[in-house]
Amino acid sequence: MESLKEIAFSEKRNPKIFLSGSIRGGRQLLETYRFMFDALEDAGAEVLSWHVADPELEKVEMRMTEEEIYARDIGLLVKSDALIAEVTVPSTGVGYEICRALVRGIPVLCLYSPDAAISAMVLGNPDPLLEAKAYPDKTSLKNIIIEFIRAL
Amino acid sequence: MESLKEIAFSEKRNPKIFLSGSIRGGRQLLETYRFMFDALEDAGAEVLSWHVADPELEKVEMRMTEEEIYARDIGLLVKSDALIAEVTVPSTGVGYEICRALVRGIPVLCLYSPDAAISAMVLGNPDPLLEAKAYPDKTSLKNIIIEFIRAL
Repeated sequence: MESLKEIAFSEKRNPKIFLSGSIRGGRQLLETYRFMFDALEDAGAEVLSWHVADPELEKVEMRMTEEEIYARDIGLLVKSDALIAEVTVPSTGVGYEICRALVRGIPVLCLYSPDAAISAMVLGNPDPLLEAKAYPDKTSLKNIIIEFIRAL
Repeated sequence: MESLKEIAFSEKRNPKIFLSGSIRGGRQLLETYRFMFDALEDAGAEVLSWHVADPELEKVEMRMTEEEIYARDIGLLVKSDALIAEVTVPSTGVGYEICRALVRGIPVLCLYSPDAAISAMVLGNPDPLLEAKAYPDKTSLKNIIIEFIRAL
């Protein structure tokens, strides 16, 4: 039987992450979301919003009401230890989720391609819980994710 | 000299509106944002974020830091009686602003073209302060805006 100390330690090592990426804003970076999902799992994190990286997502969500999708996403968000958002593809939902996380005191890491035009709501945001970083390549993306997860 | 009652009445008649639309997410609906701006002024509202409808905006913002843009936008948002967002073009900033407004108890009206794929964070959001409406044409867009302003 695990002691309370051991449980706290294992929770710390396996933080729950809300991975946020564009869905209806466009799925052109789906492959990147899948890479981030894998990097997070490799780093020992538990990705609660695995559906963001699911190529079959549209089929699943077609059978859900808008209210059910909202309730699923916010329900997972509030259970998360941190939110990691890929913000290269503009997305109203991702922007909404970043704000919701910050309001609840959940740390947010925003990642983007260096040539993308990123919102000033992200780049100019003074909230100490928000970090925004450009990744020039996949190796760098993975390293930023690992470093963030370790520091949680 | 205006009495307190008269001032309260005139403030009610000229609500301060934060108009929210895509900037770095793409300016393809700039003409619609300008139409909304004019409709709001015609309805007696004061549009605090007139820059969203400014075709020269990029030039102005090139001379500002990200922190200055963020501070300007959030500063205007918190002074507003309502936020009206055009959400047809996905925008991380617009999503962020919608959440910020709702958190502060500011009513939000989201407007969109009927054929657009709109985020479930908007369409499935149960917050009673949030209203989302499709507009099939400009006449309808103007009428929805007038009705919303009158009901404030």
